[in-house]
Amino acid sequence: MGAVNGKDFINRLNQLNNEIWFDGVRIQGKVSEHPAFKGLIQTKASLYDLQHDSNLKEQMLFLSPQTKELVGISYLQPKTKEDLIKRRTMIEHWARHTGGMVGRSPDYLNTVLMSFASSANLLIGKDNCFPKNIQALYERAREKDLSFTHTFITPQVNRSQTYFECSEEPISAKVIDRNEEGIVIKGARLLATQGGLTDEVLVFHAPRLFFEMDEAFAFSIPSNTKGLKFICRESFIGGESIFDHPLSSQYEEMDSIVVFDHVLVPWDRVFFYDNVEAARSFLSKSSFSPFAIHQVVTRQIVKTEFILGIAELLIETLNISDYQHIQEKLSEIIIGLETMKALLEKSENDAKLDECGYMRPSIIPLQVASNVFPKIYPRFSEIIQLIGASGMVTLPTEKAFHSTIRGDLDQYLQGATKTAENRIKIFRLAWDLTMSSFGTRQTQYERYFFGDPVRLSSSLYEDYPKEKYVKIINTFLDLKEKQ
Amino acid sequence: MGAVNGKDFINRLNQLNNEIWFDGVRIQGKVSEHPAFKGLIQTKASLYDLQHDSNLKEQMLFLSPQTKELVGISYLQPKTKEDLIKRRTMIEHWARHTGGMVGRSPDYLNTVLMSFASSANLLIGKDNCFPKNIQALYERAREKDLSFTHTFITPQVNRSQTYFECSEEPISAKVIDRNEEGIVIKGARLLATQGGLTDEVLVFHAPRLFFEMDEAFAFSIPSNTKGLKFICRESFIGGESIFDHPLSSQYEEMDSIVVFDHVLVPWDRVFFYDNVEAARSFLSKSSFSPFAIHQVVTRQIVKTEFILGIAELLIETLNISDYQHIQEKLSEIIIGLETMKALLEKSENDAKLDECGYMRPSIIPLQVASNVFPKIYPRFSEIIQLIGASGMVTLPTEKAFHSTIRGDLDQYLQGATKTAENRIKIFRLAWDLTMSSFGTRQTQYERYFFGDPVRLSSSLYEDYPKEKYVKIINTFLDLKEKQ
Amino acid sequence: MGAVNGKDFINRLNQLNNEIWFDGVRIQGKVSEHPAFKGLIQTKASLYDLQHDSNLKEQMLFLSPQTKELVGISYLQPKTKEDLIKRRTMIEHWARHTGGMVGRSPDYLNTVLMSFASSANLLIGKDNCFPKNIQALYERAREKDLSFTHTFITPQVNRSQTYFECSEEPISAKVIDRNEEGIVIKGARLLATQGGLTDEVLVFHAPRLFFEMDEAFAFSIPSNTKGLKFICRESFIGGESIFDHPLSSQYEEMDSIVVFDHVLVPWDRVFFYDNVEAARSFLSKSSFSPFAIHQVVTRQIVKTEFILGIAELLIETLNISDYQHIQEKLSEIIIGLETMKALLEKSENDAKLDECGYMRPSIIPLQVASNVFPKIYPRFSEIIQLIGASGMVTLPTEKAFHSTIRGDLDQYLQGATKTAENRIKIFRLAWDLTMSSFGTRQTQYERYFFGDPVRLSSSLYEDYPKEKYVKIINTFLDLKEKQ
Amino acid sequence: MGAVNGKDFINRLNQLNNEIWFDGVRIQGKVSEHPAFKGLIQTKASLYDLQHDSNLKEQMLFLSPQTKELVGISYLQPKTKEDLIKRRTMIEHWARHTGGMVGRSPDYLNTVLMSFASSANLLIGKDNCFPKNIQALYERAREKDLSFTHTFITPQVNRSQTYFECSEEPISAKVIDRNEEGIVIKGARLLATQGGLTDEVLVFHAPRLFFEMDEAFAFSIPSNTKGLKFICRESFIGGESIFDHPLSSQYEEMDSIVVFDHVLVPWDRVFFYDNVEAARSFLSKSSFSPFAIHQVVTRQIVKTEFILGIAELLIETLNISDYQHIQEKLSEIIIGLETMKALLEKSENDAKLDECGYMRPSIIPLQVASNVFPKIYPRFSEIIQLIGASGMVTLPTEKAFHSTIRGDLDQYLQGATKTAENRIKIFRLAWDLTMSSFGTRQTQYERYFFGDPVRLSSSLYEDYPKEKYVKIINTFLDLKEKQ
Repeated sequence: MGAVNGKDFINRLNQLNNEIWFDGVRIQGKVSEHPAFKGLIQTKASLYDLQHDSNLKEQMLFLSPQTKELVGISYLQPKTKEDLIKRRTMIEHWARHTGGMVGRSPDYLNTVLMSFASSANLLIGKDNCFPKNIQALYERAREKDLSFTHTFITPQVNRSQTYFECSEEPISAKVIDRNEEGIVIKGARLLATQGGLTDEVLVFHAPRLFFEMDEAFAFSIPSNTKGLKFICRESFIGGESIFDHPLSSQYEEMDSIVVFDHVLVPWDRVFFYDNVEAARSFLSKSSFSPFAIHQVVTRQIVKTEFILGIAELLIETLNISDYQHIQEKLSEIIIGLETMKALLEKSENDAKLDECGYMRPSIIPLQVASNVFPKIYPRFSEIIQLIGASGMVTLPTEKAFHSTIRGDLDQYLQGATKTAENRIKIFRLAWDLTMSSFGTRQTQYERYFFGDPVRLSSSLYEDYPKEKYVKIINTFLDLKEKQ
Repeated sequence: MGAVNGKDFINRLNQLNNEIWFDGVRIQGKVSEHPAFKGLIQTKASLYDLQHDSNLKEQMLFLSPQTKELVGISYLQPKTKEDLIKRRTMIEHWARHTGGMVGRSPDYLNTVLMSFASSANLLIGKDNCFPKNIQALYERAREKDLSFTHTFITPQVNRSQTYFECSEEPISAKVIDRNEEGIVIKGARLLATQGGLTDEVLVFHAPRLFFEMDEAFAFSIPSNTKGLKFICRESFIGGESIFDHPLSSQYEEMDSIVVFDHVLVPWDRVFFYDNVEAARSFLSKSSFSPFAIHQVVTRQIVKTEFILGIAELLIETLNISDYQHIQEKLSEIIIGLETMKALLEKSENDAKLDECGYMRPSIIPLQVASNVFPKIYPRFSEIIQLIGASGMVTLPTEKAFHSTIRGDLDQYLQGATKTAENRIKIFRLAWDLTMSSFGTRQTQYERYFFGDPVRLSSSLYEDYPKEKYVKIINTFLDLKEKQ
Repeated sequence: MGAVNGKDFINRLNQLNNEIWFDGVRIQGKVSEHPAFKGLIQTKASLYDLQHDSNLKEQMLFLSPQTKELVGISYLQPKTKEDLIKRRTMIEHWARHTGGMVGRSPDYLNTVLMSFASSANLLIGKDNCFPKNIQALYERAREKDLSFTHTFITPQVNRSQTYFECSEEPISAKVIDRNEEGIVIKGARLLATQGGLTDEVLVFHAPRLFFEMDEAFAFSIPSNTKGLKFICRESFIGGESIFDHPLSSQYEEMDSIVVFDHVLVPWDRVFFYDNVEAARSFLSKSSFSPFAIHQVVTRQIVKTEFILGIAELLIETLNISDYQHIQEKLSEIIIGLETMKALLEKSENDAKLDECGYMRPSIIPLQVASNVFPKIYPRFSEIIQLIGASGMVTLPTEKAFHSTIRGDLDQYLQGATKTAENRIKIFRLAWDLTMSSFGTRQTQYERYFFGDPVRLSSSLYEDYPKEKYVKIINTFLDLKEKQ
Repeated sequence: MGAVNGKDFINRLNQLNNEIWFDGVRIQGKVSEHPAFKGLIQTKASLYDLQHDSNLKEQMLFLSPQTKELVGISYLQPKTKEDLIKRRTMIEHWARHTGGMVGRSPDYLNTVLMSFASSANLLIGKDNCFPKNIQALYERAREKDLSFTHTFITPQVNRSQTYFECSEEPISAKVIDRNEEGIVIKGARLLATQGGLTDEVLVFHAPRLFFEMDEAFAFSIPSNTKGLKFICRESFIGGESIFDHPLSSQYEEMDSIVVFDHVLVPWDRVFFYDNVEAARSFLSKSSFSPFAIHQVVTRQIVKTEFILGIAELLIETLNISDYQHIQEKLSEIIIGLETMKALLEKSENDAKLDECGYMRPSIIPLQVASNVFPKIYPRFSEIIQLIGASGMVTLPTEKAFHSTIRGDLDQYLQGATKTAENRIKIFRLAWDLTMSSFGTRQTQYERYFFGDPVRLSSSLYEDYPKEKYVKIINTFLDLKEKQ
């Protein structure tokens, strides 16, 4: 079958009839028509359609080595630097289609799956590990263009440094039974973006120091598996009008808590279980980080370009490009953008074949980028607010422009170089990006995309090869060590 | 009549039948029952009721020197430091009732009016100035407990440093006629918080270097004056549920553009007109700044206390008080709070009688506070987001807690020291404060309360008595100047 | 005898013949004439002379309750708020005489001693505690105007969170014997500013969680006690010329490592020993912090005024007061200055009598100030560098101005409003304050005055009464706690 | 003759007998033996010797196309990306030899000269322009391995935005006569690093908006030209001991004011004169910026590596690598280093042949780097100070280690993993880098290397191609512009 189009995607999703809870009610009927979801589902459908756009097709799809069908390039296992560039180009197309606003566009999890498959060999021969299941899932996903969400954060019951869960009933999802058919999971995971809006859910664990045996698992199951529930937060869609809510009306992705109510995971879906070592190290040894961050950074660059465009357009609208402090703020965005670009390019230049034969982008520049972006993105948001200033808040709606009051709006809200209507469009976009509940969720999302920033900087310090620089100084000072 | 209660306030407001436009439609019927306004109007009513609370009455009201009725202390013209403390105490009561979230609680504009009246003498004998009208308005307001909004920002057409409006039709509100009955105004003002939700509108001009004659005016008129229109932005109320939207459901104040469509301002309502000198200097020479900032800083301190409470409660909920970076973040809030308190107290300690015989708080510490708060408030908001982290976004609603899914919520969202329900209440409050469109508007509001922060710091530099410190160095270095 | 003058101070110091090591050589002869020390000793002498200045005398001295001699007000045990103001005024005089550059002007340790004496009662009846020795020392110091240094930081061998010293030979100073005559100390302390340049050395311990018994002591001994050695760092005096090195030539205080080589501390000099509880809590329960920080903050305010003067003078010299970013930088200094002043004043306003009957300044505003200053002082230094810019470095010397090249200097180094000579004087002062090794040591000194800033902010968080703010939110949200 | 060695360089310099004024005295005798200069001159000699090191020679020298002598690669005019890499490699070798501390290592000005020659064609046929003189100088310099300084900043008389010099006698250097032999210059330039310590002085003008005709010139002359005087600042060498002053004893470069006292510049030395257009645009249109910044950024990266080594060694010495805030500080340095590296590499990847046929590195990433480094370098310095903390100041000298006090030092100053001596060496290096007058001059030097940071960010904003990003938003919002 190969790469789907938008309609295929929607139909398949509607048929799943996943158990999604929204505002205390279980969703009935077609999820694609529910006001809280239809914007995003339409947007995702348009991404799938883009795969078949005659101008882009060659940059979006490749021939499956297995079926000779055309499948998505986000599934391509790169073996050369050219493959990496191909991957990046594909990711850019999807990101540009949405201003980089859809963090979980399908390429993100396709990439994750691809990285898992490309490192599955690391699990060969280990206890309770089933690398073939990973490979099989990857192939199925690639050929059917399945969509995924993932979930890996445990409930935030207690973040004390010394906390270990000791509840009688599981809170965090755990294996409570292992039987002939598979493993049985009970408990919850904190957060799945687009939870319930994808074909499958990939379940694994963020790396950490200690695991209990019953938490040491990874698998993927269909979203409509029995006992699997997605409990949504409230919707951050401001309204249906694209004029009023240009971003949230299209790109609000929804997040949900995932509940496993005695969910049976069949054996052929299990990647590993009861293996603390695998849980601890598969993610860090696999190509997960280099490939996933390569996708994310590509998207974040596109998003930064989008932000730079908005910022400059605000400046033109207000005619304030001659203020030195405005120039400085814009140059901050430019510096951020060029830094991210340079780091991404360096990760590709320094890419190397890994032990499994795949071309991994260099992780250090990507790790640096993943330390940088969570700091600069909130600052970009702040800069937009500082440029828009008192004009950011009192913005009339589309309906006001279609009412008898329009003459007043046209006269009193005109900008130096813009009609009132265009000016309000620009400001509403700036507002939706930075001040709507959609926009602030984006800020929080980018800030925590790679996990706790405090830990990110510690990891960078710990992973970085510092010895060679210490050696320079040891030589310079002619130090001999203490005996 | 004296100080009103909530019911009086609501009835009077409903009778005005102001011309308010919301989402392209003119409001019909009782504004107090409109979903976009009723929360705020109820809150304001509760503030008026508080004036008559038997425990607080003495701290809220004083005997009018004119009528011997009990009137609001925010109208008190202070002649001693004790009067200043009385004023502060009253302001604190109202601020605490609303967590400092209502920027335009009635005391703010009552204070402005009081300051105008206390400096009206400065206009005596000046061309086209009517200080008696100011005094008369002040007395009427005090005795009837009138509510006000004000509007002083011109439309943001062009913010270039060299722009002067030269439109044929006025954009910024201007005097287009002077006749027997009064002056006629056409044009707009950018922003009136609670515009249309008060008895009157006070219209004057922020200080600037150059004024055209036709912009050099100040007056107050009833909100239902013919030709006066209030065009609202969209509502930032997230919903009616106090559980889901603890702040926006109660405190969303609405902002509006004010249009003057050939509005006649009767002579007895005009403070001055066609007087560039008065427009340029009345605000800066009057006691407007010391008294207004004294009110604002008092409220901001109460708000900071509210924020500190939320931050600490989040920390308790997550049990993360032992992280050094968390401690540092909280200490930032504490430092901000104590700094604001110390500055406010210093402004009272250093208060002096002005030329009109009123006790003005010292302006320097208040000016410093008004430079500090616009910087620390957004940081407080950021700190709350950083503490709440990934838990800030995926928050179920009240209805979810009243559905069959509640058992899951109770189990999986429990906190270290909190039930799931309490924990969600706390997080929703944190979210509404910092990430809802209500919350981000609060941030922008505090950031720009006193005007452009860039100009605020320039003013502080220019106004500050630096010479004495230069003299110390001249003496130290024994400098004689260049001839 | 009472308050000394400069000559008394110098004579007494020279007679002590303390064991001071400088650049590998033990100082011989009069320390007051040694190039590394004479600048500071002259400066201190001028401070002592200032006590007898006929215009200031009344603000510098008070009648000893014991001897009816005039003694220094820094020894005054305050019982009223007026006493606190008196103390502050005295401190200001000494600080102004030296631009706040002498961190260990005599009032600092006089104040520490006074605070110890004022809290000595807390040690009554405790094991191995001798409060009377504290009282006796205080009285002797007050009546003889003795000068002190103190030392309380252990050698920086290993700062790991889990390190406990387990060296066979003591590194950190310890009691190695207790005999009839007293206790015997061996080991070192890291740092005594002006070590060897004072009559006595006060030895105690910074508060920490765990103490070994043999480190749990406090005492004071004459600087010339047998076995006591002061090992100096290199001198930061740039040269003798006040023109070239206006600060370091006068105010370089020197720091030294203090070595205790089997030093016998006679029983009548011991405050306590072998008492872990006293070591842990005397400092925090006594009035040490409020009184010491009150002195320090007063001096820091004077120093900030000095810095503000320099900054503004640089701006005048370069004629750059119309740049917005320059105005912003100066306003930062102004905000810092006014914040420190307001906090100091609040600490006095909120002062309360303690359990021993003395008027303690409120600790919270002082603790806030001691969190603020270590952050703003380095920024002030940076601001001076940013204002001076490329002009900060290439500054000719006094001798150049007295050579045949002077004509060139006069022509080419003139400033907008200054002669070349005055301009260079101003820039050399700015350089000496921020870029000489004297200046950078001042920065490090202020940054660490109150200890590790990371721990300071943790302490502020821990000590602060947060509960009342949590309660506000508990009430607002109507929370009932988890059972 | 080709590339010189250290001895050649010293001999040639001594023979010049340049007019250098130091501390009011004109230098007599061999400048290479003067205490203020010999450290640097030895260091430069060692750089020249390195050219002939048998292991490095091939990476340091190339065959002159003119003479077939081996000449320095810093003179290589790159025509391919490989040439750029060759240049970078050469620059790295010299930078590593000095920890990146010598800002004006010969390659810097060699590169500038090379860039001038590579763009000389731009001046062909312009009034009063002599591109052949540039080419001739370049060839002479390359073949003789001449050393240069340059000077382009005018005296800092008045930095007001509206100042124009109107002194009767020139202050800033000006052409005061044009005669048969050449042009005559009178006046001064603010700053020449290593002024008087090089063979020649290159004189031109930083770009600015307005030039008077008599300031519109560029040329190069021997340092011993009649009337040319170098007036030095005081020396920042702390002393001769490499133990005590590991950096300043070797790398202090000296800065001087350059006075032109009726200096005749012969016609064959003039690049252009009386040509405002050339003065305004030659620098910006030539390859000066891309090649110069390419050299500078390469050196700054090496310096950052040196700093990272010191920082990590301090951490090891104190055993504090487990503190989260320490890890965060180090990760800041790592992020800075990797960002600079990625930007440099991107400038090479994106290099293009310019109109004169030379391979110019892409300017945007270099411009970004030149905005970034002036901000991060001072922060690196601060981080070193924050890591070293209270241990940064009280550091004994080499002589103390060679005195009888050594036993105490060995015992009391030992580090967790270091002997006392090694530990002090490390700390003295950290101190010399960040807190000595040498170190703070380095900070100011890097901060202002590319000029005023405020203007740098404005330039980046102005030069950056923002339109394409604006277009993205115009398309997204479907904006049509105001007619």
